[in-house]
Amino acid sequence: MTATQRAPVGIIGAGPAGLFLALLLKREGIESVVIDSRTRPDIEGTIRAGVLEQWCADLMRDLGVGERMDREGHFHEGITLQFGGERHHLNFVELTGGKQVVVYPQHDVLIDLIAHLEGQGQPMLFSVKDTALHDLESDHPSITFTDPEGQAQRIECDFIAGCDGFHGPSRQAIPRRREFQKVYPFGWLGVLVEAPPSYHELIYSNHERGFALLSTRTPEIQRMYIQCNPRDDLKNYPDERIWEELHARLDVPGHSITEGRIFQKGIIAMRSFVCETMQHGRLFLAGDACHIVPPTGAKGLNLAVGDVLRLSRALTRHYKIGDDSKLRTYAPEALRRIWLAERFSWYMTTMLHRDPDETDFEQQIHVADLAYVTQSRAAATALAENYVGLPVLE
Amino acid sequence: MTATQRAPVGIIGAGPAGLFLALLLKREGIESVVIDSRTRPDIEGTIRAGVLEQWCADLMRDLGVGERMDREGHFHEGITLQFGGERHHLNFVELTGGKQVVVYPQHDVLIDLIAHLEGQGQPMLFSVKDTALHDLESDHPSITFTDPEGQAQRIECDFIAGCDGFHGPSRQAIPRRREFQKVYPFGWLGVLVEAPPSYHELIYSNHERGFALLSTRTPEIQRMYIQCNPRDDLKNYPDERIWEELHARLDVPGHSITEGRIFQKGIIAMRSFVCETMQHGRLFLAGDACHIVPPTGAKGLNLAVGDVLRLSRALTRHYKIGDDSKLRTYAPEALRRIWLAERFSWYMTTMLHRDPDETDFEQQIHVADLAYVTQSRAAATALAENYVGLPVLE
Repeated sequence: MTATQRAPVGIIGAGPAGLFLALLLKREGIESVVIDSRTRPDIEGTIRAGVLEQWCADLMRDLGVGERMDREGHFHEGITLQFGGERHHLNFVELTGGKQVVVYPQHDVLIDLIAHLEGQGQPMLFSVKDTALHDLESDHPSITFTDPEGQAQRIECDFIAGCDGFHGPSRQAIPRRREFQKVYPFGWLGVLVEAPPSYHELIYSNHERGFALLSTRTPEIQRMYIQCNPRDDLKNYPDERIWEELHARLDVPGHSITEGRIFQKGIIAMRSFVCETMQHGRLFLAGDACHIVPPTGAKGLNLAVGDVLRLSRALTRHYKIGDDSKLRTYAPEALRRIWLAERFSWYMTTMLHRDPDETDFEQQIHVADLAYVTQSRAAATALAENYVGLPVLE
Repeated sequence: MTATQRAPVGIIGAGPAGLFLALLLKREGIESVVIDSRTRPDIEGTIRAGVLEQWCADLMRDLGVGERMDREGHFHEGITLQFGGERHHLNFVELTGGKQVVVYPQHDVLIDLIAHLEGQGQPMLFSVKDTALHDLESDHPSITFTDPEGQAQRIECDFIAGCDGFHGPSRQAIPRRREFQKVYPFGWLGVLVEAPPSYHELIYSNHERGFALLSTRTPEIQRMYIQCNPRDDLKNYPDERIWEELHARLDVPGHSITEGRIFQKGIIAMRSFVCETMQHGRLFLAGDACHIVPPTGAKGLNLAVGDVLRLSRALTRHYKIGDDSKLRTYAPEALRRIWLAERFSWYMTTMLHRDPDETDFEQQIHVADLAYVTQSRAAATALAENYVGLPVLE
């Protein structure tokens, strides 16, 4: 026997897109159910970096989930670009007329959202299996899955929001899709280190041995990355080699990064991906389900929240005044901003990395790009306005 | 018997770099001899487009050769970028605080320079053969060649300026060179047309069939380009096909380009090239001899003049106050600006063309680049400040 429930909006995925959407809809009095195949401890415990654009941090506060972010997050006025052995600071606050970013880990955002939604009685089901989408082209789509007790369940809805990431079933449920992809021939080896901060803001380094990124998580824990072969094995990176690479790529005369105990290592691949078919009947995709950016521009989380802010407004118009026009234009309007963020992430990624497939000429062009962006106020302003976040709604 | 003469500076090449250098040195009372393997009618009759940056037009006036440019040149306030079937105007005057460019053909610049130099008694030898450079690492370098009468000649100098373009002997005389190159997998098919102007400024179009550029030479003659395979044959481009491509790539609703008799056709290849070894002993390279840009950014002529402006100041310090420091730093200081111009030319070229070797994702990124640069004031200002010319000397 399948247990059936009804909800106006069925949300697949309890990541940033799904949880922000549930909260945005709840504020408008629109009920939803969130399901996720992962366990709640998995979701809350998967350590992910996070950089919130100005408007996204403001939205957190506006939704009543910004208190811990304001207490524990780090407010950064800018970033440092390092190349040719020198560091150049870009002051975003000054370049953008007062905007800044908040460095606050993504899993902390999720912990705050889940706790807040739970307090408001939001239905959320974790650890579900066999999620499938049905009747998307009808006006009564549904989601089926098996709950943690082994019970077959069905949610009948008006709309389904596919917020289940790159590998989830939602995008796969769309039969014909227009997709664009670039897989980069490099990845990041990231480490978590027990050490005091080496610097108070992020340092992005273009070095002939490859990219490196210095960031800080807490006063006691630092996160650092070095460009590597995405198919390399962690066992080829003993701690000594990692420190050698970090020092070579990030040290400058008079300033050496501080070492400490490395207690986590991991390699991530880098991909740019856009599925322009963000709507199929009553299914709407948001976040990583329809676009991936390499992490260099720190855009992933913000882009997901931008999507569901737009989707929540479209759904609100549907339920409040019976106007579906914003649902029809959801995809083309969202895509304009998505492509701008894809552009910026590609620009930061190609400018800062050493691509083994590129010619020496192209690598010199990236160094010239860095020289230009650190000496032209117009170019620096362009980088800054993207980093702190382009306008999220027209 | 070799006829020998002496000149402080021997200039190989009577293109923009060589002729501007001769005039800049003459103004300081430093004598030079200019030689070129081409005939004077060849140099003056090879029709080349030209876009002078603001400072370069000012330098023409300052040197007393700006009169015809001011009378016959076209002062452009900006350019139009066309993509997705729409045109977007960038107003450089407004974006850069008053700067503009002058569209004045390169061969007209050369005609004016040669006439002016001739009037001042500048030694210039055309149609020379077998040019060779000698003793570059000594303090008495020399140039040998055969003059048009078949007489072997030698110029003994203090310095040699290699202004003889990409294929000239000067760069080849440097034994070990640090060079960077990118050859683009596309070229331009250019036509000259007897017709009134279709538009009062340049239109750069990114179209799925390839790039197109609309420009005007005189009220009666227009110059238009379409992206093509650089190894294609002109016989594959009958006039009807050219007009079909021009209309498809440049027309917008309510505005169709005006046809006319095509009286010249040609295909040019596209290359980016930098030889960082711009100095070898007493030989100094300038202009196309040490760097090539694709024509999309209209930077070639300006870059050559920038080089010799710098070189003339370094030589002036040598002769006037015996200070060689600016000769020693000529290459590294010139290269900073050269790489910025290479970057801009590469950016304009990759953004506007359809590269058959690129993925669909990368082509969408270029369209996003165009969308961004036409909606962000910061990005538009960055494009504008490059187009009208970055600062030429520190």
